[in-house]
Amino acid sequence: MLSFESDYTEGAHEKILERLMDTNRESLPGYGADRYSESAREKIKNACRCPGAAVYFLVGGTQTNAVVIDGLLGACEGVIAARTGHINVHEAGAIEKTGHKVLELPEHQGKIAAGELRDFLKSFWSDENHSHMVYPGMVYISHPTEYGTLYSCSELEDISSVCREYKIPLYMDGARLIYGLAGAESDVSLPDIARLCDAFYIGGTKAGALCGEAVVFTKDRVPLHFTAQIKQHGALLAKGRLLGIQFDTLFTDRLYEKIGLHAAEMAGRLKEGLKERGYSFYLESPTNQQFVILTKEQYERLKKHVAVSFWEQLSDSGIVVRFAVSWATRQEDLEALWEVLDRLKMEETQEVG
Amino acid sequence: MLSFESDYTEGAHEKILERLMDTNRESLPGYGADRYSESAREKIKNACRCPGAAVYFLVGGTQTNAVVIDGLLGACEGVIAARTGHINVHEAGAIEKTGHKVLELPEHQGKIAAGELRDFLKSFWSDENHSHMVYPGMVYISHPTEYGTLYSCSELEDISSVCREYKIPLYMDGARLIYGLAGAESDVSLPDIARLCDAFYIGGTKAGALCGEAVVFTKDRVPLHFTAQIKQHGALLAKGRLLGIQFDTLFTDRLYEKIGLHAAEMAGRLKEGLKERGYSFYLESPTNQQFVILTKEQYERLKKHVAVSFWEQLSDSGIVVRFAVSWATRQEDLEALWEVLDRLKMEETQEVG
Amino acid sequence: MLSFESDYTEGAHEKILERLMDTNRESLPGYGADRYSESAREKIKNACRCPGAAVYFLVGGTQTNAVVIDGLLGACEGVIAARTGHINVHEAGAIEKTGHKVLELPEHQGKIAAGELRDFLKSFWSDENHSHMVYPGMVYISHPTEYGTLYSCSELEDISSVCREYKIPLYMDGARLIYGLAGAESDVSLPDIARLCDAFYIGGTKAGALCGEAVVFTKDRVPLHFTAQIKQHGALLAKGRLLGIQFDTLFTDRLYEKIGLHAAEMAGRLKEGLKERGYSFYLESPTNQQFVILTKEQYERLKKHVAVSFWEQLSDSGIVVRFAVSWATRQEDLEALWEVLDRLKMEETQEVG
Amino acid sequence: MLSFESDYTEGAHEKILERLMDTNRESLPGYGADRYSESAREKIKNACRCPGAAVYFLVGGTQTNAVVIDGLLGACEGVIAARTGHINVHEAGAIEKTGHKVLELPEHQGKIAAGELRDFLKSFWSDENHSHMVYPGMVYISHPTEYGTLYSCSELEDISSVCREYKIPLYMDGARLIYGLAGAESDVSLPDIARLCDAFYIGGTKAGALCGEAVVFTKDRVPLHFTAQIKQHGALLAKGRLLGIQFDTLFTDRLYEKIGLHAAEMAGRLKEGLKERGYSFYLESPTNQQFVILTKEQYERLKKHVAVSFWEQLSDSGIVVRFAVSWATRQEDLEALWEVLDRLKMEETQEVG
Repeated sequence: MLSFESDYTEGAHEKILERLMDTNRESLPGYGADRYSESAREKIKNACRCPGAAVYFLVGGTQTNAVVIDGLLGACEGVIAARTGHINVHEAGAIEKTGHKVLELPEHQGKIAAGELRDFLKSFWSDENHSHMVYPGMVYISHPTEYGTLYSCSELEDISSVCREYKIPLYMDGARLIYGLAGAESDVSLPDIARLCDAFYIGGTKAGALCGEAVVFTKDRVPLHFTAQIKQHGALLAKGRLLGIQFDTLFTDRLYEKIGLHAAEMAGRLKEGLKERGYSFYLESPTNQQFVILTKEQYERLKKHVAVSFWEQLSDSGIVVRFAVSWATRQEDLEALWEVLDRLKMEETQEVG
Repeated sequence: MLSFESDYTEGAHEKILERLMDTNRESLPGYGADRYSESAREKIKNACRCPGAAVYFLVGGTQTNAVVIDGLLGACEGVIAARTGHINVHEAGAIEKTGHKVLELPEHQGKIAAGELRDFLKSFWSDENHSHMVYPGMVYISHPTEYGTLYSCSELEDISSVCREYKIPLYMDGARLIYGLAGAESDVSLPDIARLCDAFYIGGTKAGALCGEAVVFTKDRVPLHFTAQIKQHGALLAKGRLLGIQFDTLFTDRLYEKIGLHAAEMAGRLKEGLKERGYSFYLESPTNQQFVILTKEQYERLKKHVAVSFWEQLSDSGIVVRFAVSWATRQEDLEALWEVLDRLKMEETQEVG
Repeated sequence: MLSFESDYTEGAHEKILERLMDTNRESLPGYGADRYSESAREKIKNACRCPGAAVYFLVGGTQTNAVVIDGLLGACEGVIAARTGHINVHEAGAIEKTGHKVLELPEHQGKIAAGELRDFLKSFWSDENHSHMVYPGMVYISHPTEYGTLYSCSELEDISSVCREYKIPLYMDGARLIYGLAGAESDVSLPDIARLCDAFYIGGTKAGALCGEAVVFTKDRVPLHFTAQIKQHGALLAKGRLLGIQFDTLFTDRLYEKIGLHAAEMAGRLKEGLKERGYSFYLESPTNQQFVILTKEQYERLKKHVAVSFWEQLSDSGIVVRFAVSWATRQEDLEALWEVLDRLKMEETQEVG
Repeated sequence: MLSFESDYTEGAHEKILERLMDTNRESLPGYGADRYSESAREKIKNACRCPGAAVYFLVGGTQTNAVVIDGLLGACEGVIAARTGHINVHEAGAIEKTGHKVLELPEHQGKIAAGELRDFLKSFWSDENHSHMVYPGMVYISHPTEYGTLYSCSELEDISSVCREYKIPLYMDGARLIYGLAGAESDVSLPDIARLCDAFYIGGTKAGALCGEAVVFTKDRVPLHFTAQIKQHGALLAKGRLLGIQFDTLFTDRLYEKIGLHAAEMAGRLKEGLKERGYSFYLESPTNQQFVILTKEQYERLKKHVAVSFWEQLSDSGIVVRFAVSWATRQEDLEALWEVLDRLKMEETQEVG
């Protein structure tokens, strides 16, 4: 069946698989001490133009968020995030499992606002006695957000500046960063992110790898005994080569960038095609996820032919569904989608008629 | 350089890589809901002759131990393990991180003894008031152990019987299970393990997979909301297919068994060859890890030519090193090893002379 | 200085101190096994008309909430509470420290609404896949709430009924329960609470004891190894007699009730007197805490003469302050307060004049 | 019944109760901000001759150990303790509940040896790769130990010196410190302890208070947001006055010292009297706890007349029981004990005869 369900439904970019094949019989040390991991770390630091950065490879996104946030927070500190932030709603309480609270800020299409962040911090610190409260210890954002929206460079600068004012680290969840960097409407680059964030991760899983996320600490803020912390969380991969080789491949010959551009191309066509067919959008997303409002009937029909993600039930009985493209989407997939949508539209009209 | 450092220094068995290639462009649901994961679960249940089992795939061993043990223990309960058990010494405190104590039993070449287990439990329960103590909530063993030793079927039956008497689950860490099942001296089969343990895992990482461990609950003791627990630990892989396809391959056409037999063959030759060359063994291991005592000088020379694992500094200045073979070891690797050892021996004799 | 700062600024009711004196040299077993603790447990069960209840004594409120909630929740479960619930804002993250999330509901003057609770639960369970979410595992309410407001018996019945429908326990924080039971506007009794809640605690600290909270489990839902859990949380008092004697005294000759009625009398006069003097109230509280809006100048003057609690800075520069009465407030304290307020009012008028 | 069961079976020293009475109606701020707590902190700093110390009051011993150890340890760090240390065996896993491992050292009548501590640390740090292990983050000792034994000043100096060498804090559990300071055989003073330890606590519960332990940080190592940490652990007492007044009384007119001397006097007589009557001792204890070996029959008879603590079942059917004296023991209690013991001895002889 045709699938626009998510950006992790296929395996890996073929170049990655080839590289795994080619290196398969090499005997390499474990736990990230192999030469491919070392090379990948160097290439990522270059891509970020941040030679002093420290780079670690983990397996998945929720794991990465839990390990990094638990590592950056001190006792009694919580992490500030948008109410809709992934760590607050879709990680089964992984942050709280480490003993830390998620401190909610209002969200604006998935984003937090620098002004509201400053107000929150100001209000906390203006109270003299905090010993009954959770201290705001860091800020979490994702880029793109849960809703596919993007921070502008100036928005990021404002948030970063508030964090520095209050001396707390800014951390960016980049599970889908590739789709944020490549979009035509994005003015944020990897070096910008390295400059403005204290830590962030470059998602591999949703960017053509089998698995893997590359955490980058840009400002000498690597948590104490960090490799042991990764191990303690059960997140230190024995065959670290699996992560090293994949990221080394992604950051060789600009593969990561090319994948992103292809996906952005597909994303633009998806959005355009849905618009042309008169669908209404739940919100304006400039990235690879498009949120469309369907009636229950439309949704029931559609899902017989195309895998999409159920997103949300609206109060007026409308249903939000997500269409996602990825590095793996081809022009013919889109064409097949148009064919299905047009056919369903016709059937709908006939029935009504 | 020639490597006998561990059983996870190569990539994956070629059949696994081929299968990943072949299925790469299939669009599959995430988080283990794909058909390969489903198929692998069925094949594992069959191999265990345990149709009622529940099978889950995780990424790595420490992670698996933490998720399963945290899941099986109730409040104020700890896990009984050998003093040298992996969870007690080499997992960076991953069990304690989940809030549970490891309750130590004496070890006998890495193994616990049923009699000592019974005494421990009897002594705990004979005290009337336990409210100041950690309750023994389950038993952890590994097979093979940290020292490559094996439980006999009758030893396992005794331990299992004590666990049932005291109504606590028995859990087996099978990171290297493949090397335990295949050895000529082993009388324990997968169905035996499924019969005697409440939970165990079949290690993939050290058995020719890129990563992955298959957890098997045999007696309806799957922890509450277990998939969410896996997620909460950051251990739920988005592209679950990566684990499903690998285990499906391992359990197709008896590949897992064949890999094991090959490794057992190599292990036998390794042990034999070391014996013939007059090395003394730290202990008698029937599996793929051999622990040999060297002088400091011997060790220094050796490691210039062959990667081995430093294991332990003995009080009398002897050094224990580990030679490991695996699914990936070939006859020519052994021959290269003999050549090196013989040459070093000759040099040593000449110098002394 | 005159103090209306809180309901825990004095020591203990004199009858309690006398009883501690009288029993002081008796040699009694520790950890709550003494006869006074036993007697107190029986009296509390009688007062609740719940002979099957299990009663435990702990030292303080935050401790009690953490121990009970951690005990009642399973893995991956969170506790539903009002956004303004004490556990969500004023306990320094004690719940998250135990690994559990607080799931926020909207608040209505500190209370949650049964309808919104049902919607939340319905929405959670209508989604088929929860493995990425925190399961709603119990409901927390406080009575009176953080704002001194009260649930009516019918509101409690509705909430209780939703909890039973979804098979999750209802837990009431009764830190200030004494002020909730005694008020003229309250139609909720201890037996009602025992009938409608699965667990609750009767606060001692704010009801004339030096310290101590009595936890009551009414429906056979005592958590596993609960005394050990209390110990593990560092909450098992060695000299349990200190708690037993105090609660035994409170529940002898209806002392708890009498204290409550006296405080309610004082609370009524406080509210009346503030109203007569034209103060505006932040909200309508029927209990011992009254929330009054002052200008910054009024607050600065007032606090030179009377200790009150700063509660909240309003956006329009108004300041909410809390006046609290308690078991220890005497008629002459109120008279002294009126004198101060009248004098300040006069000064204010003159200055303006 | 006559009781030598423990040192916490009575209420409080009468001077403490009087002081609670006298101050009862004073209106004081909560959470330790009252003037009695402030005064007590000053007196303790003076008694320790450590003007730069920071003093905090907590309610009980297990709580204090958990809060302080959790506060002092970083991520992936564990606390080194004797195998028989209270935190390792009698606190229901309170340390592990905070996520940290207890790293066991051998015990010598309850004590650790500086040499073995150094070996442990040296061995840990001589290994180059610790990322799979728990880092030794601090050292826990108790004085007296679980077996009533004492460190000499020179032993403490050696342990302290190892800790400084390895830059980890030394923490002393002083639940029974009063009995350690007063004994004739002790050459360790409060100022010695303050000089040699980074943190320790002065037990109140077992020294004539109703409850309460005074934590002293001597070297600017107060954990981050420590009052909030206390709150988060549920250990911040609302009526902090209860702790402040008790410690202020204990440290006024040398009451703490006098209580200790009285108890030491009683302890000496207890030991002497048991010796004279021919009992054999499980070990040589110089403090208020004496461990005596009885036959099962002797124990059964004894416990009908005197409350003592069952300590341990020896393998040869002997039973270790503990007799404890305290601040509350009077000469007539000892005389009553001798009467009982002599009578039982006579009955025993007659039966055998």
